[in-house]
Amino acid sequence: MIMRTSWVASRKGQSNVSQMYFARREVITEEMSFVAKKENLPESLIMEEVARGRMIIPANINHLNLEPMAIGIASSCKVNANIGASPNASDVNEELKKLHLAVKYGADTVMDLSTGGVNLDEVRTAIIQASPVPIGTVPVYQALESVHGSIEKLSEEDFLHIIEKHCQQGVDYQTIHAGLLIEHLPKVKGRLTGIVSRGGGILAQWMLYHHKQNPLFTRFDDICEIFKRYDCSFSLGDSLRPGCLHDASDEAQLAELKTLGELTQRAWKHDVQVMVEGPGHVPMDQIEFNVRKQMEDCLEAPFYVLGPLVTDIAPGYDHITSAIGAAMAGWYGTAMLCYVTPKEHLGLPNPEDVREGLIAYKIAAHAADIARHRSGARDRDDELSRARYAFDWNKQFELSLDPERAREYHDETLPADIYKQAEFCSMCGPKHCPMQTKITDKDLENLESILSSKGAKEINTMKLDKEV
Amino acid sequence: MIMRTSWVASRKGQSNVSQMYFARREVITEEMSFVAKKENLPESLIMEEVARGRMIIPANINHLNLEPMAIGIASSCKVNANIGASPNASDVNEELKKLHLAVKYGADTVMDLSTGGVNLDEVRTAIIQASPVPIGTVPVYQALESVHGSIEKLSEEDFLHIIEKHCQQGVDYQTIHAGLLIEHLPKVKGRLTGIVSRGGGILAQWMLYHHKQNPLFTRFDDICEIFKRYDCSFSLGDSLRPGCLHDASDEAQLAELKTLGELTQRAWKHDVQVMVEGPGHVPMDQIEFNVRKQMEDCLEAPFYVLGPLVTDIAPGYDHITSAIGAAMAGWYGTAMLCYVTPKEHLGLPNPEDVREGLIAYKIAAHAADIARHRSGARDRDDELSRARYAFDWNKQFELSLDPERAREYHDETLPADIYKQAEFCSMCGPKHCPMQTKITDKDLENLESILSSKGAKEINTMKLDKEV
Repeated sequence: MIMRTSWVASRKGQSNVSQMYFARREVITEEMSFVAKKENLPESLIMEEVARGRMIIPANINHLNLEPMAIGIASSCKVNANIGASPNASDVNEELKKLHLAVKYGADTVMDLSTGGVNLDEVRTAIIQASPVPIGTVPVYQALESVHGSIEKLSEEDFLHIIEKHCQQGVDYQTIHAGLLIEHLPKVKGRLTGIVSRGGGILAQWMLYHHKQNPLFTRFDDICEIFKRYDCSFSLGDSLRPGCLHDASDEAQLAELKTLGELTQRAWKHDVQVMVEGPGHVPMDQIEFNVRKQMEDCLEAPFYVLGPLVTDIAPGYDHITSAIGAAMAGWYGTAMLCYVTPKEHLGLPNPEDVREGLIAYKIAAHAADIARHRSGARDRDDELSRARYAFDWNKQFELSLDPERAREYHDETLPADIYKQAEFCSMCGPKHCPMQTKITDKDLENLESILSSKGAKEINTMKLDKEV
Repeated sequence: MIMRTSWVASRKGQSNVSQMYFARREVITEEMSFVAKKENLPESLIMEEVARGRMIIPANINHLNLEPMAIGIASSCKVNANIGASPNASDVNEELKKLHLAVKYGADTVMDLSTGGVNLDEVRTAIIQASPVPIGTVPVYQALESVHGSIEKLSEEDFLHIIEKHCQQGVDYQTIHAGLLIEHLPKVKGRLTGIVSRGGGILAQWMLYHHKQNPLFTRFDDICEIFKRYDCSFSLGDSLRPGCLHDASDEAQLAELKTLGELTQRAWKHDVQVMVEGPGHVPMDQIEFNVRKQMEDCLEAPFYVLGPLVTDIAPGYDHITSAIGAAMAGWYGTAMLCYVTPKEHLGLPNPEDVREGLIAYKIAAHAADIARHRSGARDRDDELSRARYAFDWNKQFELSLDPERAREYHDETLPADIYKQAEFCSMCGPKHCPMQTKITDKDLENLESILSSKGAKEINTMKLDKEV
């Protein structure tokens, strides 16, 4: 039997089944216990953090094969991988392949951002059924598709209908673009790249056409009512995130962030779990400000950022431009990093891009854990360094984030088995590897006694204070 | 005629031909003028910074086809690419190919770190003759080779002989491991990976064998005398840089740094140009400390760091682990970033690795320029963002750090020419690209007048303060 089947059995039919609801009533759920073990943290801490809203456990009661995980500053930094078909590329098998790759390379959650070219419901349910990690979605795309792309016909009820459908299918968190208000739109003037959130763009068009407030905002309480019955978590979308360095940290972005903070508190009144999405494209010197501002405005609800990219001039390498920003954001306290692949801005990622993007982000998240001094974060680094110094190549590969890649690169020049015991690689060749300079403690003790008997004067024959 | 032939003609035979020597006598050399134009900075500033030692222009008078460049906090952040053959791989043609690739992808300087498998002098002179950028070397390798690898036979004079040979051949800067003192060696105890500098390891072995002080330290004045006749610059080597996160910022590293500061001042007494090498492997939260400490101990002589890598667990991706650290180091004020390729720790980089490593570091250096608010640094980003928003794909590619890669990735799914004008790529498909949401100023003015006539109450139908 699937682990969670019995866990959720007794909860079904309750009016609120959210982890936050239970935590606030001092109930430690099976999900909290599971997460506590995974994170090596006390169950009580997990419960308190979830109750406080500083940690979420996205775990839809209809996603039974889920292995629960936590997103929050008290736990390790997490990584999300976006997959999904577009009208120009991919199908359900390709997407399942991407899912498996994402999980293999350590994605903590996966978002299915399919926009078309496939049966969206079929792809989504296939992904949920196959996924041990939480699945996130952006319901706005399908809402628009359900009225054949007509902004005119798209109604408040259409949004709610699709949101509930995703909940029923077992989606663990949904990006809800409720913070983009009609009064924010004029603030976009003067931007270089306007609105770059797909969902946000749809809402903006809707508001401009209907001259009405954002339906996801006006119906926010209704969405909370739906979410609490499934324990679907909010990922409050940042429709006005900057699409380039020029637009970073501007009035539009910060106005929406303020609303996201108000919505966070509103959801918490319903005992519904919330994380908040963030940018995007941000110069390095503005990243700390962005993280601190989110913590302040959103009362430390977990921050979930996309990158940020620290320069706009490297399409083809945006997994790198953004891993730099992501690592820093994680260090400053961001809870989850949404990966960016090398194909960003250029095309739909293929499975190899998923791999490249994920490893870049596992690096960023891990570096953040180390810099935040999270308990035990550096252990694997130390173990790998010991293996490296001992020339234990196979162990070095095993401890790597991508063992196949490490082995492949090593073997490119020295494929023979014998080189797996060699005290060198082709970088420096057999005589010049600095790791061969094994100075033993005995060597050093010997040296120390010589130094103390000879005295510094005899040894140190250069006087830095003599005249030139 | 080659540009520099006439520039250096009158200097030949002078006892000191260094840029610092001239700058301190308020002479603006042709090299300083050239650099001023390149950096879009006043000539007088270049002269003052060189005189102060805060900027170097590595420009050996025997490297005639050099296009001079500057390394220092007042100028843009620079990137170095290491190339070189090892006994297990490569030859002179392969190395020239790497040189051309490095220059093509924007290397500001190139180091030839050949350790064997080729005629070292032949490769070095071929590289210098073919290179418009400064060439750096590490003379210790060849010094050891000149006595057939025998530490016992290696004499002080052997070091000086090779150092002068490199100067004669036109090497613009040499890594001189003079800061590693015999009394520093016992401080290495307790490290996980000991000494990881190739040159430093050789010096350590020499001192342990001979029980004498580091000859590059005791003969430092003599090296200055050689350098000033060619205007070869010091790159003071950090033999005790950490080889893993565990060893970062330890007593050994900081003791050597202090000596490097003393040697910096010593070289300046000779009017010889100096930059100082730095780590290595450093957790993110220690990078700022490392940069500030170097500035303090070395009186703001330009800092030249290798990475640093911010985690040890990603062999195969160390261009990324280190680009994160490099970008941050650059932001904090590091003058030049030494690239790391995906093959680091695994094998000798091939031309494709050179490309990957360089682009990662061009990203890091550029992001640093932006974060430091260097004048005009963001212009190219803004231009690319405008092209992106206008769906001008070709211009977007042209403005990229690697146009071929950007085009290749785009064309992977949409190769036909017609898609170069398309208002979408395969990422979102024809209907969902957020950049299509072009909200015009007119739309927004229209909206503003509606908002002011309707009033906020009518529009904003959700009250966040109502009871749940």
